[in-house]
Amino acid sequence: MTTDPFFHPVSGFDLPRFAGVPTFMRLPHIPPEHPRFAELQIGLVGVPWDSGTTNRPGPRHGPRQLRDASTMIRAQHPVSGLRPFETANCADLGDVGPNPADIPDSMDRITAFYERLVGAGIRPLTAGGDHLTSLPVLRALARERPLGMVHFDSHTDLYHAYFGGTMYTHGTPFRRAVEEGLLDPKRVVQIGIRGTMYDAEDRDFAASAGIRIIPIEECMERGWAEVMAEARRIVGTGPTYVSYDIDFVDPTFAPGTGTPEVGGPNSFEALQVCRALSGLDIVGADLVEVSPPFDASGGTAFLGASILFELLCAMLD
Amino acid sequence: MTTDPFFHPVSGFDLPRFAGVPTFMRLPHIPPEHPRFAELQIGLVGVPWDSGTTNRPGPRHGPRQLRDASTMIRAQHPVSGLRPFETANCADLGDVGPNPADIPDSMDRITAFYERLVGAGIRPLTAGGDHLTSLPVLRALARERPLGMVHFDSHTDLYHAYFGGTMYTHGTPFRRAVEEGLLDPKRVVQIGIRGTMYDAEDRDFAASAGIRIIPIEECMERGWAEVMAEARRIVGTGPTYVSYDIDFVDPTFAPGTGTPEVGGPNSFEALQVCRALSGLDIVGADLVEVSPPFDASGGTAFLGASILFELLCAMLD
Amino acid sequence: MTTDPFFHPVSGFDLPRFAGVPTFMRLPHIPPEHPRFAELQIGLVGVPWDSGTTNRPGPRHGPRQLRDASTMIRAQHPVSGLRPFETANCADLGDVGPNPADIPDSMDRITAFYERLVGAGIRPLTAGGDHLTSLPVLRALARERPLGMVHFDSHTDLYHAYFGGTMYTHGTPFRRAVEEGLLDPKRVVQIGIRGTMYDAEDRDFAASAGIRIIPIEECMERGWAEVMAEARRIVGTGPTYVSYDIDFVDPTFAPGTGTPEVGGPNSFEALQVCRALSGLDIVGADLVEVSPPFDASGGTAFLGASILFELLCAMLD
Amino acid sequence: MTTDPFFHPVSGFDLPRFAGVPTFMRLPHIPPEHPRFAELQIGLVGVPWDSGTTNRPGPRHGPRQLRDASTMIRAQHPVSGLRPFETANCADLGDVGPNPADIPDSMDRITAFYERLVGAGIRPLTAGGDHLTSLPVLRALARERPLGMVHFDSHTDLYHAYFGGTMYTHGTPFRRAVEEGLLDPKRVVQIGIRGTMYDAEDRDFAASAGIRIIPIEECMERGWAEVMAEARRIVGTGPTYVSYDIDFVDPTFAPGTGTPEVGGPNSFEALQVCRALSGLDIVGADLVEVSPPFDASGGTAFLGASILFELLCAMLD
Amino acid sequence: MTTDPFFHPVSGFDLPRFAGVPTFMRLPHIPPEHPRFAELQIGLVGVPWDSGTTNRPGPRHGPRQLRDASTMIRAQHPVSGLRPFETANCADLGDVGPNPADIPDSMDRITAFYERLVGAGIRPLTAGGDHLTSLPVLRALARERPLGMVHFDSHTDLYHAYFGGTMYTHGTPFRRAVEEGLLDPKRVVQIGIRGTMYDAEDRDFAASAGIRIIPIEECMERGWAEVMAEARRIVGTGPTYVSYDIDFVDPTFAPGTGTPEVGGPNSFEALQVCRALSGLDIVGADLVEVSPPFDASGGTAFLGASILFELLCAMLD
Amino acid sequence: MTTDPFFHPVSGFDLPRFAGVPTFMRLPHIPPEHPRFAELQIGLVGVPWDSGTTNRPGPRHGPRQLRDASTMIRAQHPVSGLRPFETANCADLGDVGPNPADIPDSMDRITAFYERLVGAGIRPLTAGGDHLTSLPVLRALARERPLGMVHFDSHTDLYHAYFGGTMYTHGTPFRRAVEEGLLDPKRVVQIGIRGTMYDAEDRDFAASAGIRIIPIEECMERGWAEVMAEARRIVGTGPTYVSYDIDFVDPTFAPGTGTPEVGGPNSFEALQVCRALSGLDIVGADLVEVSPPFDASGGTAFLGASILFELLCAMLD
Repeated sequence: MTTDPFFHPVSGFDLPRFAGVPTFMRLPHIPPEHPRFAELQIGLVGVPWDSGTTNRPGPRHGPRQLRDASTMIRAQHPVSGLRPFETANCADLGDVGPNPADIPDSMDRITAFYERLVGAGIRPLTAGGDHLTSLPVLRALARERPLGMVHFDSHTDLYHAYFGGTMYTHGTPFRRAVEEGLLDPKRVVQIGIRGTMYDAEDRDFAASAGIRIIPIEECMERGWAEVMAEARRIVGTGPTYVSYDIDFVDPTFAPGTGTPEVGGPNSFEALQVCRALSGLDIVGADLVEVSPPFDASGGTAFLGASILFELLCAMLD
Repeated sequence: MTTDPFFHPVSGFDLPRFAGVPTFMRLPHIPPEHPRFAELQIGLVGVPWDSGTTNRPGPRHGPRQLRDASTMIRAQHPVSGLRPFETANCADLGDVGPNPADIPDSMDRITAFYERLVGAGIRPLTAGGDHLTSLPVLRALARERPLGMVHFDSHTDLYHAYFGGTMYTHGTPFRRAVEEGLLDPKRVVQIGIRGTMYDAEDRDFAASAGIRIIPIEECMERGWAEVMAEARRIVGTGPTYVSYDIDFVDPTFAPGTGTPEVGGPNSFEALQVCRALSGLDIVGADLVEVSPPFDASGGTAFLGASILFELLCAMLD
Repeated sequence: MTTDPFFHPVSGFDLPRFAGVPTFMRLPHIPPEHPRFAELQIGLVGVPWDSGTTNRPGPRHGPRQLRDASTMIRAQHPVSGLRPFETANCADLGDVGPNPADIPDSMDRITAFYERLVGAGIRPLTAGGDHLTSLPVLRALARERPLGMVHFDSHTDLYHAYFGGTMYTHGTPFRRAVEEGLLDPKRVVQIGIRGTMYDAEDRDFAASAGIRIIPIEECMERGWAEVMAEARRIVGTGPTYVSYDIDFVDPTFAPGTGTPEVGGPNSFEALQVCRALSGLDIVGADLVEVSPPFDASGGTAFLGASILFELLCAMLD
Repeated sequence: MTTDPFFHPVSGFDLPRFAGVPTFMRLPHIPPEHPRFAELQIGLVGVPWDSGTTNRPGPRHGPRQLRDASTMIRAQHPVSGLRPFETANCADLGDVGPNPADIPDSMDRITAFYERLVGAGIRPLTAGGDHLTSLPVLRALARERPLGMVHFDSHTDLYHAYFGGTMYTHGTPFRRAVEEGLLDPKRVVQIGIRGTMYDAEDRDFAASAGIRIIPIEECMERGWAEVMAEARRIVGTGPTYVSYDIDFVDPTFAPGTGTPEVGGPNSFEALQVCRALSGLDIVGADLVEVSPPFDASGGTAFLGASILFELLCAMLD
Repeated sequence: MTTDPFFHPVSGFDLPRFAGVPTFMRLPHIPPEHPRFAELQIGLVGVPWDSGTTNRPGPRHGPRQLRDASTMIRAQHPVSGLRPFETANCADLGDVGPNPADIPDSMDRITAFYERLVGAGIRPLTAGGDHLTSLPVLRALARERPLGMVHFDSHTDLYHAYFGGTMYTHGTPFRRAVEEGLLDPKRVVQIGIRGTMYDAEDRDFAASAGIRIIPIEECMERGWAEVMAEARRIVGTGPTYVSYDIDFVDPTFAPGTGTPEVGGPNSFEALQVCRALSGLDIVGADLVEVSPPFDASGGTAFLGASILFELLCAMLD
Repeated sequence: MTTDPFFHPVSGFDLPRFAGVPTFMRLPHIPPEHPRFAELQIGLVGVPWDSGTTNRPGPRHGPRQLRDASTMIRAQHPVSGLRPFETANCADLGDVGPNPADIPDSMDRITAFYERLVGAGIRPLTAGGDHLTSLPVLRALARERPLGMVHFDSHTDLYHAYFGGTMYTHGTPFRRAVEEGLLDPKRVVQIGIRGTMYDAEDRDFAASAGIRIIPIEECMERGWAEVMAEARRIVGTGPTYVSYDIDFVDPTFAPGTGTPEVGGPNSFEALQVCRALSGLDIVGADLVEVSPPFDASGGTAFLGASILFELLCAMLD
């Protein structure tokens, strides 16, 4: 299949990669009001929002830096040979406009935006934003039925509440998502979990709900191929969401994030795990917690853009 | 007057300045529950909070970086010769614990903390936090009567609302403070205002309420001595609050802030204006909007610590 | 006059400034092939090109970083009150695609792009690129008659050749422009010149051609008001180009440039000189030599964006 | 066993991790003169001193940056489940005050401080400082009998002298310690040694004294599990010191150090080797050579804080 | 064999490594006009040139930063024990003076310089410069007969042309070299290739010419020992050039480069592959694409200097 | 007078400024053992030493970074037109090799080196190194008779001792120099003094000895022209040393230093004061306290190199 060249990114052979208004992967910018919006199959969306961050802020700047770094991405996958932009109509849908000083208002705005995508049959690939972003996205995507989820992270994000009762932070989205019936906990797998712990409240919830946690030590011992095979078994053939927190990756490879945990996978492994997702029924995916203020060299954003490309290919392969 | 040596900072002649647990100006750490709390006259307080930030976040990290930089401060003012720590009992009271994901809750926590200081007769010198910090502080300090204010900033922070009705952000604190009767607008002067404008809504409010705005161009033309003389006339002899937004200073001298505006005063002028406050009836002061993630060299924090020292001396001279 | 809202930038009150695909000053992106191109009066153009750089490279990255920083710019000038985007139809025309490995080819591409603007009656405001950029731009703008020029810089860029005969570098554009009849040397003034010198060959050429050089020491002694009054007299009422090399500004305020010279104007003066251009017959303007790889904090780009806004207002006031 | 809550760190669920005066792991600050000093079992001590550094200086700033980063550490070990602060009374004892311009004076100050700990039965966990720090610490700890040592480093630090006879530098501490009878060379193992060599003088000394050196190439080939098993055999059940030079870790993971050597372990391995120390009779441990001026992102300090937590758990497990 | 001490670097035991005018590895600076030039066997040459760069510029600054970092290198290889400076007369020959604004002129200058080395029987070890550097070097070295090549890189650099026909860029040198008969494609192996692709034009050329490409995925799966054994078989015993693009290494370990590709080897592997070259008939080697403006911490340069040392030892072992 | 071209720096028109082994101002490297040493009139010397630093270390790296930055310096002074390298035989003499771990040994090495210069009639221009450097230099230069001194600094460096009796630190050199009879206190002027004070011990000493201190506030009020006129009167026509601590300049312009004090002169003023020294009998000069680890952008070094050029011209004008 070859798509309409209107939807193809400009090549670095024609326009140097540092030139041009930066959109995700140099795709056309097609916001919902654009006349060709309805032709899209995959929409890349930015959610510049970090009000749920309990620690070091910054992911509100993520989408812009990811757009910038993503102009380094070319047209073809080096291993599979897939040319995603010729396989499906893809575009940069722009950013959801958040309200930095009002969490519920922001969540409503996000859900409303994604409902429009769902209505148009466009699968979203999201660039966050902090991890609370996933919750309002899931509210739109899982309206009909709970989803399975492959979740790459160093944290479970399954806590009940922070600071004496605050229920909506970047440490709680998946607890809420399970409670709201957006995720089927039996089809949820969390990979790469590590770091010092407050306590075991999140692990206890996971155990009781049926969520499978694979700590980093187990990943390192069994190898990524085996871990990903198990992950595929857990989510099975049903509709699945992929949520990729950049802090899954070791902070030396991805310093630009708010709550790093040392001892994680390297950048080769960071891509490898995405390649193992091909063939799943991925209804949406996100990459979150890229925090440019802590990414002096821009390396995190470039790794993030590479991960977004891998996720895109996994959604299309 | 010489105070109890218990309240004196350790000298850099005895312990090198890079050594030791960093408190504000190497003062003893005396939280409210400390037995000698009641003896204090001036309390240095950190408010690590930036949930009101509509643009680039980071001031939640301000107090810690200001503590670190402030270990460079010595015992004596170079011009007046004042030795503030021998003039009044000063201490680091620690930080107010905010709730990063809940603005009203955080404001209540802040006000409650400062009411304790007011009750104990301790004048606060605050290290923010974003500029919304000033509002809950004023709620405690101005409970009895409205205050005058000398306000150094590049922005008026007098807007009505953001994002379609959000009333509590770092761009609105003094609009709220006037509305709540915490400030007497006739005794408020805003100095150094500059930068491109959304519109004139804030200026119109100031004009109708009687707030005096002195734009940077007027400061540069008349000179700081004359501007500060006018500021002193405006606040007069009544109780006065001093609010110092680090973005008053040119962003080359103070890059570590979220909403910089080029074309401001240099670091010599940044200190000079504080020295012109001596003798006023200062019931409290703050330095806000120091944002370490945008302050790679630490220079903003060191300038901020120097300003805090000048404000302290102005409160005691 | 109020322009069609289609051409108005989105406000930071509606969409936070860190959100959205970054165009110059958040203007609509209207490349020449856009249906509303013909309605434009001012076009902001990026020229991401630095092949003429003899020293530290990087200005090829300038346009993108300037776009990013320019999302901090609001709608109204703080001193004149001018609202430029309501005064004329402005847009981001995108970047001219250069050929980084071929100087003559790149110059031809640039001239061709600007001829299209001239043909459409659109005045260009250019974000470079190194200073060689000005030459192909002038070739399009001065086709009909030589222009006067107000040139802010620390270097004269009037050298004959480098490296044994290379005639097209960022140190030679105005020598070529005079030779090609694009500039009327009697109507050219160079302001802020400073730094150690190879020799006096450039000064000798200026003297013999009638170009007026005002070194920084003279600026500091006479004051900017007087200097700018002389500059206005020199260019008079004829068609005038404004070329602003960011290294005019002191490198502490603008570190992100390739050939800094210490001892220049501060950021307040950097804006002030632009404000003194109002009323001239400005047929085009550029800001060049912003080099992001040497601008770790982004401060140079933000100052550059502020200068672009001032130049835009000067073109419309 | 659960310890007195007085000795428990504040939780990030209660006070955000960026808030509060930063002590090691948010423990109470209990200097020797504190009334509850005698109740301590483990003391975290800073030694902000780098006068023995022959190359790039900076570790004098290590303790403060490690305190800052260590506020990211939570209460429970992710693998063993150990909650160290509930297992033993731990505290931040503050810094030993060095004399930056006098090496012998500084060494005496350090030894005197640690003798106080030995006298009180408190096991020290030290944050350096350069590697010369270990020598005066060992003089206090090994007063009674020589110790075994597990030493992680890229250098042996066994040289005789520098610069024509200077015997006390960060390249000589363990040569001196063996000569002074503080270490039993037969129970000393050095792990991770690598990098270009001046000559083989240090290796020759090690061979003749019986010190076992395991170069990085051997570690990579045999695997860390086997290497650490050998290390445990070497030190056996006797009293053992652990000295961890951050330059053991690859400089990409730990750039903030003075004498990096490429080709070292990653951050997962950096933690793994500590976990293999559990059960040894560890009488003290140190982490040295963290140099904040070369650690722009703070990543080295965060890795260092994570290593300190692992060492603490190894001392208690 | 021990060489004349005149050619030995000064030791860090005598002069601290931060002291002295920085030459490559602290060797004597012996430009071609030096009286002892003819005694040299190995010449370290800088080529500060990046005009062929199509993406992010900067390698023109590489040689100077590599010289600085290389003062950290000591006299002896840690594994083989080789002391290269006592094995052959080595020196820093200085830099070839390029013409940054003229590609053909620069290539001629480079070839002329290297022809002088060939004439004197000096084998060159080059510090680039971008990868186009290798072409003019090969023109001098392969004048007599085509060479084999071991090429470490993430890109093949085998493209035909950029930007509509530009044939000399850093993405084309080895296409040209094969076409010019400088390389025997059957004796060329490219190792570590990865990253998104424009298309397969380069791979097609390689396949038809007989060049062996070993992508990173194959390296990771087979292991470096096996990959290098194959590489040795491919180049065989004939004269061989080694070209090492620093972007072969993962960009977290080597951020200072213009066109990074995530997912590459770590720094241990980066050295390991060089050690596997010992015994080949290496007639010259280069390390290219080190770009200091993107190497804030200097870590890339230090890794690069370590690689240069490994290449030097491989040339002498 | 025109000097032998052997002593002329290479021009940036011939060899780009980023190319070549970096010596001070691209001068020939002529250590004392060089055959043409005796022909020199001015020697630029590096003293990479900071063992006297009581606060943040780093100036040991100053000479190398100053060499690098100084390759930006050209041949002619922009105001006076002086071409110093054609006026006197100048060279880079290399660095004095210090002993980083032994202060007295280092001081002896420095004095011995400078005695050689004195013996050869070469006037030294020194790049430090911390401010203790000036003391061993003065011991060589003032052997015959006490010198006058113009001292630019924010600190007096006149303290008696630190840390309970340590007499040789970078805060004490001029106290020692007066005591040792190396300086005639009546002919010493200290300009730009500022910052918070420990106490007034240094001022009291200055007052009793007859040293004139001109605090920054007085400089700002009277203007630099008047201040420098007074300075010239104080040192008169006798032999004079110039000592320039980079922390004289405001830390925003010169962040790369260990003990910054905000509120100092800008970079224009930093040069201006040097120009006011012309005609004095300058027997030697130094620029000290440039600390590269705190100078991320390199701007301090470039300012420092510009100051060195001004000092050189002042010595020759």
